[in-house]
Amino acid sequence: MTHPAPKSFQQWRLAKHPDGVPTPDCFELVDTPMPELAEGQVMIATHYFSLDPGMRGRLSGDSYAAGLKISELIESAGIGEIVASRSERYGVGDYVMGGLGWCEGNVVSDRGLQKLDPALFDDKVSMTATIGVLGVPGLTAWFGLQDLGQPKAGETLLISSAAGPVGATTGQIGKALGLTVVGIAGGSDKCSYLTELGFDAVIDYKQASDLPAAIKAACPDGVDIYFDNVGAEMLDAAILNMRLNGRIVVSGQVSEYNRAQPHGIRNTTAFITHRLRMQGLVVYDYHKQFVDAQAAMAKMIRDGSLRYTEDISQGIADAPKAYEALFAGANFGRRLIKTIG
Amino acid sequence: MTHPAPKSFQQWRLAKHPDGVPTPDCFELVDTPMPELAEGQVMIATHYFSLDPGMRGRLSGDSYAAGLKISELIESAGIGEIVASRSERYGVGDYVMGGLGWCEGNVVSDRGLQKLDPALFDDKVSMTATIGVLGVPGLTAWFGLQDLGQPKAGETLLISSAAGPVGATTGQIGKALGLTVVGIAGGSDKCSYLTELGFDAVIDYKQASDLPAAIKAACPDGVDIYFDNVGAEMLDAAILNMRLNGRIVVSGQVSEYNRAQPHGIRNTTAFITHRLRMQGLVVYDYHKQFVDAQAAMAKMIRDGSLRYTEDISQGIADAPKAYEALFAGANFGRRLIKTIG
Repeated sequence: MTHPAPKSFQQWRLAKHPDGVPTPDCFELVDTPMPELAEGQVMIATHYFSLDPGMRGRLSGDSYAAGLKISELIESAGIGEIVASRSERYGVGDYVMGGLGWCEGNVVSDRGLQKLDPALFDDKVSMTATIGVLGVPGLTAWFGLQDLGQPKAGETLLISSAAGPVGATTGQIGKALGLTVVGIAGGSDKCSYLTELGFDAVIDYKQASDLPAAIKAACPDGVDIYFDNVGAEMLDAAILNMRLNGRIVVSGQVSEYNRAQPHGIRNTTAFITHRLRMQGLVVYDYHKQFVDAQAAMAKMIRDGSLRYTEDISQGIADAPKAYEALFAGANFGRRLIKTIG
Repeated sequence: MTHPAPKSFQQWRLAKHPDGVPTPDCFELVDTPMPELAEGQVMIATHYFSLDPGMRGRLSGDSYAAGLKISELIESAGIGEIVASRSERYGVGDYVMGGLGWCEGNVVSDRGLQKLDPALFDDKVSMTATIGVLGVPGLTAWFGLQDLGQPKAGETLLISSAAGPVGATTGQIGKALGLTVVGIAGGSDKCSYLTELGFDAVIDYKQASDLPAAIKAACPDGVDIYFDNVGAEMLDAAILNMRLNGRIVVSGQVSEYNRAQPHGIRNTTAFITHRLRMQGLVVYDYHKQFVDAQAAMAKMIRDGSLRYTEDISQGIADAPKAYEALFAGANFGRRLIKTIG
């Protein structure tokens, strides 16, 4: 299947740096003419792209974290089909994943793309899994838990934002490794979902007036590994429940991204009294091991020990509103936009 | 040289839990009758004991960090002479170091003591070094920098409270390992002292209106290892200057110990953007390697590459006032009390 190479693509670009939650007026949909392909470039028609809370920091353009400039393409993982090629690596019709951005398509260098191996997919593993459970969220769970978390069977793993794509995957890998897995999520639907996935206990933070006490009740022997996607007060509450030599995996800090001033944590003395270790994760540091991890997780999906949920909506126009909703806790599984009908 | 076994010893005990800086009225000097020795016990006449800011947390008696109870002996490292023994390990006249407490003497179990090897001391290495540069502060520097800091020659090491016994030792070990060493201290005397010790740059935090900027000026390429004895705002300022894959060794959090509410840090998102690792140190975890580390540091003292400063005052009565003064930044080197004239 091939498409004629289009002259232009719709692309979401940064209209203004958000102040707090990124609202739709921070984004502008621009019909962008495509240049002639240079040597080593390909033109990709995007089929799916993802909406990632972790990308929020890139929208701010502050001096510390390198950020997007006004009118730059919004970043995200995506899956697309090569529709024109001056690359030796990819031919027309190949499917690839990579950092395609919020767009219907683009002309990009052939470096940094990953060819999708058709053998990875079947009726149990969808192609969209490559930017979900087998993509950045799943790989973050895989390497964060195993390399930074250093889990030992019998230990207790606590996960925040546990119903999100990273958290839900982390919990299921934790179960496969013989851990006791406790998830924190907001609302009874998400908590029921975690129980279905095999979590040993769940904490509905919206119902918990005293979060440290709720964690203590769910993890009476303390927490060996805290896999954090939230930060701030929730991270502090977890620290108060860490066991000696506990490990904190800083995967995301979603509660920090929209604050005017960072909140951070208060309980730093516990790092001494409890010999804690806290470490931040950038999943791309493990890129040489991606293929093996993806194969292992695909196997878990096929044998039923790893389940995943995708929340796919149709049409590129939806992206800004759907992105805003992520920060209100509306996401359930991996949030994707399907650009091609 | 032996002493007759005394019937009682003066001992400092906890009179009340401090609220903020521990004032002298938190301590009570009690003439404590000595019990008959049981099997495996020794009676020790203390010659020197140390005053440690890090012990502050133990005075609070809060529920999180295990604390001292009212009327318990105040804890500290000390050097003493065995004056009576029912131990197979130690005879009268042996010198030992251990957690003797703020006291002129005590009856204790023979476990947890370390016999002082006379070969370790000479005109260049004093016996008091065993509770200073060769004791907990020096060992904290040694293992904290090398095991948690994972230094590589050419990297930049930043140290807070750098003129204290831990900081000054850390810096000199860092120089021996080929690091660029930058110290933060308060006041020109301490800063001059660090320059004398071979530090590459010093920051007088009392003169720095913008501490993150002052660190950036002193470490223009960023900080690979931050050895933290202070915590809070200073830790946050260091985090803003960490390089990718930077390591933070949490050795002490002296600025936290006397606050009614912990201050903590704000810049936790940097753990993700800069792949940082922060880890707390408890030096006793390395006890099996103590003897080798002490021999290595004694060699550095003899060859002139490791210098140390002790601030010794005479008489047990001084301890509470001298301890209070530590929190005003008055200490210069290891603070010791000599109990025997």
